[in-house]
Amino acid sequence: MAKHQANPQPVDAAVTPRFGSIPTFMRLPHLRDPSQLDIALIGVPWDGGTTNRAGARHGPREIRNMSSFMRKVHHVSRIAPYELARVADLGDAPVNPIDLMDSLARIEKFFAKVHAGGCIPLSAGGDHLITLPIFRAIAAKRAIGMIHFDAHSDTNDRYFGDNMYTHGTPFRRAVEEGLLDPKRVVQIGIRGSIYSADDMAFAENSGMRVIYMEEFTKLGVEKVIKEARRVAGRGPTYISFDVDGLDPVYAPGTGTPEIGGMTTLEAQHVLRGLQGLDLVGGDVVEVSPPFDPSGNTALVGATIMFEILCLLADGVARRRKGKKK
Amino acid sequence: MAKHQANPQPVDAAVTPRFGSIPTFMRLPHLRDPSQLDIALIGVPWDGGTTNRAGARHGPREIRNMSSFMRKVHHVSRIAPYELARVADLGDAPVNPIDLMDSLARIEKFFAKVHAGGCIPLSAGGDHLITLPIFRAIAAKRAIGMIHFDAHSDTNDRYFGDNMYTHGTPFRRAVEEGLLDPKRVVQIGIRGSIYSADDMAFAENSGMRVIYMEEFTKLGVEKVIKEARRVAGRGPTYISFDVDGLDPVYAPGTGTPEIGGMTTLEAQHVLRGLQGLDLVGGDVVEVSPPFDPSGNTALVGATIMFEILCLLADGVARRRKGKKK
Amino acid sequence: MAKHQANPQPVDAAVTPRFGSIPTFMRLPHLRDPSQLDIALIGVPWDGGTTNRAGARHGPREIRNMSSFMRKVHHVSRIAPYELARVADLGDAPVNPIDLMDSLARIEKFFAKVHAGGCIPLSAGGDHLITLPIFRAIAAKRAIGMIHFDAHSDTNDRYFGDNMYTHGTPFRRAVEEGLLDPKRVVQIGIRGSIYSADDMAFAENSGMRVIYMEEFTKLGVEKVIKEARRVAGRGPTYISFDVDGLDPVYAPGTGTPEIGGMTTLEAQHVLRGLQGLDLVGGDVVEVSPPFDPSGNTALVGATIMFEILCLLADGVARRRKGKKK
Amino acid sequence: MAKHQANPQPVDAAVTPRFGSIPTFMRLPHLRDPSQLDIALIGVPWDGGTTNRAGARHGPREIRNMSSFMRKVHHVSRIAPYELARVADLGDAPVNPIDLMDSLARIEKFFAKVHAGGCIPLSAGGDHLITLPIFRAIAAKRAIGMIHFDAHSDTNDRYFGDNMYTHGTPFRRAVEEGLLDPKRVVQIGIRGSIYSADDMAFAENSGMRVIYMEEFTKLGVEKVIKEARRVAGRGPTYISFDVDGLDPVYAPGTGTPEIGGMTTLEAQHVLRGLQGLDLVGGDVVEVSPPFDPSGNTALVGATIMFEILCLLADGVARRRKGKKK
Amino acid sequence: MAKHQANPQPVDAAVTPRFGSIPTFMRLPHLRDPSQLDIALIGVPWDGGTTNRAGARHGPREIRNMSSFMRKVHHVSRIAPYELARVADLGDAPVNPIDLMDSLARIEKFFAKVHAGGCIPLSAGGDHLITLPIFRAIAAKRAIGMIHFDAHSDTNDRYFGDNMYTHGTPFRRAVEEGLLDPKRVVQIGIRGSIYSADDMAFAENSGMRVIYMEEFTKLGVEKVIKEARRVAGRGPTYISFDVDGLDPVYAPGTGTPEIGGMTTLEAQHVLRGLQGLDLVGGDVVEVSPPFDPSGNTALVGATIMFEILCLLADGVARRRKGKKK
Amino acid sequence: MAKHQANPQPVDAAVTPRFGSIPTFMRLPHLRDPSQLDIALIGVPWDGGTTNRAGARHGPREIRNMSSFMRKVHHVSRIAPYELARVADLGDAPVNPIDLMDSLARIEKFFAKVHAGGCIPLSAGGDHLITLPIFRAIAAKRAIGMIHFDAHSDTNDRYFGDNMYTHGTPFRRAVEEGLLDPKRVVQIGIRGSIYSADDMAFAENSGMRVIYMEEFTKLGVEKVIKEARRVAGRGPTYISFDVDGLDPVYAPGTGTPEIGGMTTLEAQHVLRGLQGLDLVGGDVVEVSPPFDPSGNTALVGATIMFEILCLLADGVARRRKGKKK
Repeated sequence: MAKHQANPQPVDAAVTPRFGSIPTFMRLPHLRDPSQLDIALIGVPWDGGTTNRAGARHGPREIRNMSSFMRKVHHVSRIAPYELARVADLGDAPVNPIDLMDSLARIEKFFAKVHAGGCIPLSAGGDHLITLPIFRAIAAKRAIGMIHFDAHSDTNDRYFGDNMYTHGTPFRRAVEEGLLDPKRVVQIGIRGSIYSADDMAFAENSGMRVIYMEEFTKLGVEKVIKEARRVAGRGPTYISFDVDGLDPVYAPGTGTPEIGGMTTLEAQHVLRGLQGLDLVGGDVVEVSPPFDPSGNTALVGATIMFEILCLLADGVARRRKGKKK
Repeated sequence: MAKHQANPQPVDAAVTPRFGSIPTFMRLPHLRDPSQLDIALIGVPWDGGTTNRAGARHGPREIRNMSSFMRKVHHVSRIAPYELARVADLGDAPVNPIDLMDSLARIEKFFAKVHAGGCIPLSAGGDHLITLPIFRAIAAKRAIGMIHFDAHSDTNDRYFGDNMYTHGTPFRRAVEEGLLDPKRVVQIGIRGSIYSADDMAFAENSGMRVIYMEEFTKLGVEKVIKEARRVAGRGPTYISFDVDGLDPVYAPGTGTPEIGGMTTLEAQHVLRGLQGLDLVGGDVVEVSPPFDPSGNTALVGATIMFEILCLLADGVARRRKGKKK
Repeated sequence: MAKHQANPQPVDAAVTPRFGSIPTFMRLPHLRDPSQLDIALIGVPWDGGTTNRAGARHGPREIRNMSSFMRKVHHVSRIAPYELARVADLGDAPVNPIDLMDSLARIEKFFAKVHAGGCIPLSAGGDHLITLPIFRAIAAKRAIGMIHFDAHSDTNDRYFGDNMYTHGTPFRRAVEEGLLDPKRVVQIGIRGSIYSADDMAFAENSGMRVIYMEEFTKLGVEKVIKEARRVAGRGPTYISFDVDGLDPVYAPGTGTPEIGGMTTLEAQHVLRGLQGLDLVGGDVVEVSPPFDPSGNTALVGATIMFEILCLLADGVARRRKGKKK
Repeated sequence: MAKHQANPQPVDAAVTPRFGSIPTFMRLPHLRDPSQLDIALIGVPWDGGTTNRAGARHGPREIRNMSSFMRKVHHVSRIAPYELARVADLGDAPVNPIDLMDSLARIEKFFAKVHAGGCIPLSAGGDHLITLPIFRAIAAKRAIGMIHFDAHSDTNDRYFGDNMYTHGTPFRRAVEEGLLDPKRVVQIGIRGSIYSADDMAFAENSGMRVIYMEEFTKLGVEKVIKEARRVAGRGPTYISFDVDGLDPVYAPGTGTPEIGGMTTLEAQHVLRGLQGLDLVGGDVVEVSPPFDPSGNTALVGATIMFEILCLLADGVARRRKGKKK
Repeated sequence: MAKHQANPQPVDAAVTPRFGSIPTFMRLPHLRDPSQLDIALIGVPWDGGTTNRAGARHGPREIRNMSSFMRKVHHVSRIAPYELARVADLGDAPVNPIDLMDSLARIEKFFAKVHAGGCIPLSAGGDHLITLPIFRAIAAKRAIGMIHFDAHSDTNDRYFGDNMYTHGTPFRRAVEEGLLDPKRVVQIGIRGSIYSADDMAFAENSGMRVIYMEEFTKLGVEKVIKEARRVAGRGPTYISFDVDGLDPVYAPGTGTPEIGGMTTLEAQHVLRGLQGLDLVGGDVVEVSPPFDPSGNTALVGATIMFEILCLLADGVARRRKGKKK
Repeated sequence: MAKHQANPQPVDAAVTPRFGSIPTFMRLPHLRDPSQLDIALIGVPWDGGTTNRAGARHGPREIRNMSSFMRKVHHVSRIAPYELARVADLGDAPVNPIDLMDSLARIEKFFAKVHAGGCIPLSAGGDHLITLPIFRAIAAKRAIGMIHFDAHSDTNDRYFGDNMYTHGTPFRRAVEEGLLDPKRVVQIGIRGSIYSADDMAFAENSGMRVIYMEEFTKLGVEKVIKEARRVAGRGPTYISFDVDGLDPVYAPGTGTPEIGGMTTLEAQHVLRGLQGLDLVGGDVVEVSPPFDPSGNTALVGATIMFEILCLLADGVARRRKGKKK
């Protein structure tokens, strides 16, 4: 009881207006020791794996900026994350904007430390390649499942000759490295013209459940939730949210927009339906502020982070209860 | 019959292109005497009650600008407001950008004069606090009901110490002052993270009907209309439309955007379902042009004003008919 | 078999990143002889018929720019247009930005040559008046049908005195000139305030099937497709896609936005339902880049062109097969 | 004495904030009878003569909007125009956005009435072709001189085949029609690549004094003023200010920007040096709001109008004094 | 010697790229105890005194954001502020966005504590009224002088009836309250139309040295520096930099732009000429990000802060040396 | 005589408006064989060496877009480049957006072929690191001199650990590799805060002539030209123009803006003063369209390319004449 009173709390908006103060994630304190935290909010300002329009390197800063709009309790689930868990802004993972392999190593090392501290990471990218070193850090011992919101499967093989690592390849690599269990992966929102008719072969052959946008529309949100829960099952599961899974009117600030995507409200409904899964981390990626004149993409990114944060905090509370018994 | 020919008419777009001429509301004449009018279109360029991003002071000018897109007849209801009623641009209510209490007094006084002239006000804000002095002017004698589109309940109590009047508090104040009958209030589109689990206690305890966005999605538009009509009943009713009730892709130019809102088409459908209520006024608030790079928010504001105007003009015609009998 | 290997192909995005190279439509070669092609992608950079906000003259260039996002195969229908047909960028039709009648003549002449070469035109406007001279070129011998996406019927009569030719009149003129068979026309997405209660009289009296946005919502996509197919029947049919048929959040960059429109996903679903019609051409018009700060309208324009291209290429292949038998 | 108290006055900014009220030019009353005025501020929302990027049709509205920033007295010359002269917003000249020749006729007729009323016009364009019909209205009886700020000489001959009237030709036409005395014309700020080495032949051969940007830099402002006064002499003189005479950082919102232009401060200094000439009218043209994301071009346009207004009002006062003697 | 090694240092850009990490001023640590610092960088996110376009409440956050561009040593003076002085980001002063008088009290109290700790404040506004409570905190015991960059004198008396406190009045109030010695004030860059011919009477009559933009141009930078140093003399002096002193092309993001201002390079030259004065504080005000689409105004604000910081740090070092002797 | 008639010519703007047609550099033909050309215009869409804000990968496309504004003859020098030389758009050099070393190799190889064909390259970047592989291609046999416009010396050593190749290091590498003769290098416009007092040591010690912005202001344009010519001497010389050499109001669309830079007019004057040097190539780099809301940076880039093109074409003509003798 006394416990949660000591939890880090956001700056109080009834005292300090939301446009004021230094913008940390959710206006939480900036702390440096993950072992003191249940959940760490982490920026990964890196877009070196981007094959088209860059700019996701600026994502964490703008998501932090817009996260000042967030308050403290989820209005539907009534989850109060800062009561349930110790959460703070852990700053940014180190990156190298001009060296891809060096960046992968730096990011992995940083997240390994977070993971070793028993802390669940919730990250703001950066391009989607950042999820690979995060997986290397948190899934080294057992493959994890994934709820994956995206317009693209990100299971391509190679680009520009022989490059294995781009933001179009992380989940093929993760499967190959034994980090990701394809049978426990669901991809939601896939769409957009493809390079060849077998672009989706790896995803489909490896056993991932691909819910194309067309199927999403037909199923409706409730059935998508059921399907996602069925696929993820009881094992450890990660939520990876690429904002290009949304229609580009909701997220114009991204590198590879595809029209005809889901609404934020639909995405929020699906996310809220994931409560109770065994969640081990999450990220929001591909927010590219230079292509976001109204700032809405960063606001969406911050709100989706809050949605995921509530799920993670609820999980922390459940585990704690479970242990008590 | 001769009557409506004398009604003020918009500038003719087949003669003067819509980008030309001085932008009044709906391209109507700018008149100054409310007693000559059935319905007055009024700007209230004031955002002194704003606790977050300001800019709604510029709302009336941009809504006027975009209202040049409006034509003369509603394409669904076929209501022709300028045939049914005498409508004009009455200019702006006086305001004081650096003195909140003085502004409340000035606005109330201006609307009291409009009301005394037997004229129904349809206003363009300004932030949502402007609705309070309008209520003081038009609801002093009997409490009114309200159809309220918004992401926020605006029934908070105090901010920044002990400030009773902000754009987050008008409807708590209006209930306390006996201007608003909470039993005849329906709030549509409420959503977004909250400060504490009891943020909605005043609204709910006082008897307001709160249709959260989640319920809105489940009910669908037809049932929302029914519910709104049921709550409003036969008494005098006001329509207050905060553009942040819409998803921010439709209205990015606002101070406190919350993702996951309704579409403009849904809002339009609900509004069209309100025909026949005893409407005594309306407003469109929280259009903040500095955050609206494409201008769409102001276009939405102008179109929603036109939707409400058609309802009000229809009401004027019905009352006139009623009296004739 | 050897045939399609010779078909023009887009620049390979796995070799040349999509932000690189000179932006032709779909990154296809720029060729000049229509008789070598099955389908020609053509820009018509002209907005001299615009009665309100101009800028569609810049449409072709920005659509070309954004069309670099397109890949090679449709992800739903699996149509691979560049395997099925010879497609290239034929450059722009000649225009005269300061002389309306001269422009109509130049455009007609250019498209007549395309048509004479047995090549199907898919055009990027330009304002909607460009469709009239295209019709004069391709429908001189027999009236065609049309699937028409738009907020406006574009069947007005005269503007600004006695002007018969504006972007609000092309389809009245086309019917009068015997180019368009009104009984085989379906207009989808019509909405927005009107000048007078009989604005739609010509469309309705001539026999066009008008699906207002309200009916669209009620029918749903599947029934709209059925109705469109029923109206178009088996005769030669053209697809004309005015981006203002979409809600302006999807297409803010246009001259006459009307809120409350369809989503891109809905439009895409309808288009995909048109496979198998006897399609003789298509266009995407009213993309106005100066009003498109995020570039999304041009991306939408490019993607809709790709959707139509797939339908046209499928038609080319069907006809070829038909002939073989 | 009693006279000037009756002069129209701007809305008082110490009472009504400058973002409020309906935006007329300089917040002056909108009047309709030129014969009651000494100086009329007039919008000409037309860009049908534009050969490149359009949008100047929106110029008058945005210049009106930004003119709310203007106050009442010139801070250097201390000229108080509303004390010296009767000035008002006369609304817009009629135009036809789709018919060039019709527009020229309508504009001429409107200005002829202004001129007949003894009123000096100060106009906001619109593209530069609008100056031609203004000249036809006010210079029919005797050729006038001109101080012309511009990047381009606007003395070309024909475009797009045989079109004599574009925004690149007005001053060749005006000389040919005997409206403009080329010997009394000075062009200031000319620059930018040219189509051929003899592009400037007409201007130079007809006797216009062309001050290229290079000479402007070398001469400095004081000598430019001297030269302009020398060329204009004592005869009736018009000031035509194309905002592309300024460097595009000051006026990005224009159709044909040329880098390397003058600063606004330099232009203001030159204008202030023209006090005392026999000024018979003026205009500010080529403000194109769709290309002006920050709004600065319209602010510049409004301020330059105020600068010219002060010169014109001073001239009115001088003539009045002269007559009294 | 060991001393400066302990001084707070910015995040190292050769390790952490400049787009990464949480944006404090100059990437310095966020500390809370002014008594540990020589110079405190402070945000004052408040624009409640603004009479025209608001938005300066967002200034501190964007200036912090853009200050990541700053490095560690001044390239002309070679002043290395973080070697000479203990400098940090002290966070924001508390404010109340809806209560002017409460805000003045809160700001004064915060700065009084900074001053009591022997720490020199360098602030980012906020509108120009914030300078008044800063003066009350730091100049209570003896009137100070001021180098004031601005388009406006800010010595008006009252607005909107009887309001004494707006961003147009701080320096009249400061003189009246005995905080500011008008004989030791120089105002640089004054320009723009005025309300009446005696707008500048208070400034001039009280003995302030007003360098209008016209005189600035004639004098040139070197003589302006001399004059500023002469006026400031040896007494304690404050530098107040309103970004509207610059031409609006350099600082479009401000509430009351006036064209025809100085360049940033000129302002930087003047500032560099102030080295050695007895500087007791400084501020950069009126940066309004909502009106700053390119972000340049905030970059200018951050760079001007760095320029002033170098002057202040040099002063700290000089005083330390002086004391040692 | 017959010769130059066969030279490639831009699309004729008096026939095809400048907003029409596919945007190649200067509207020239897109050719592929450098050996047929005297001067090749080449895009290098790559920003993998960028340490701060990226986006220069989009530079070539937007510069091509804006280069449609260019005409055919220089208005000051009267150089007509397409009469003097065979010039065309050679397309883009191949690049790899996710592999720095691979990109350097691809770029070098492409330019080596251009150089081998006897063709002078004029390139549009891309970030400044692209100049290094260009030098490797064209200066392998003898070190060249350079006129270098920039805010930064770009002679740093290493970043982010041990990375030798970034856009901050090309000219140190070029000197080390014997490609660039530092004694024949002049750097113009250097400014901005520095990391440490010896940041400029390499440039100064190696013998480069550094004209800081401060010296630029004092010298004035004429003396800067003299100094540049003196340093470059008679040897082969390259012009490298980083747009951040300009003040960011002229070039906001760049990755590392520094306020207080030169004007475009000053830069143009300096460039024009370089006629007659032995020029062997040139480039315009660091145009980053995502940070360029008005498009002015790309327009500046295109115009500076035209300025350099005129110098190069003049050089081609001089050499041809020289050979003839």
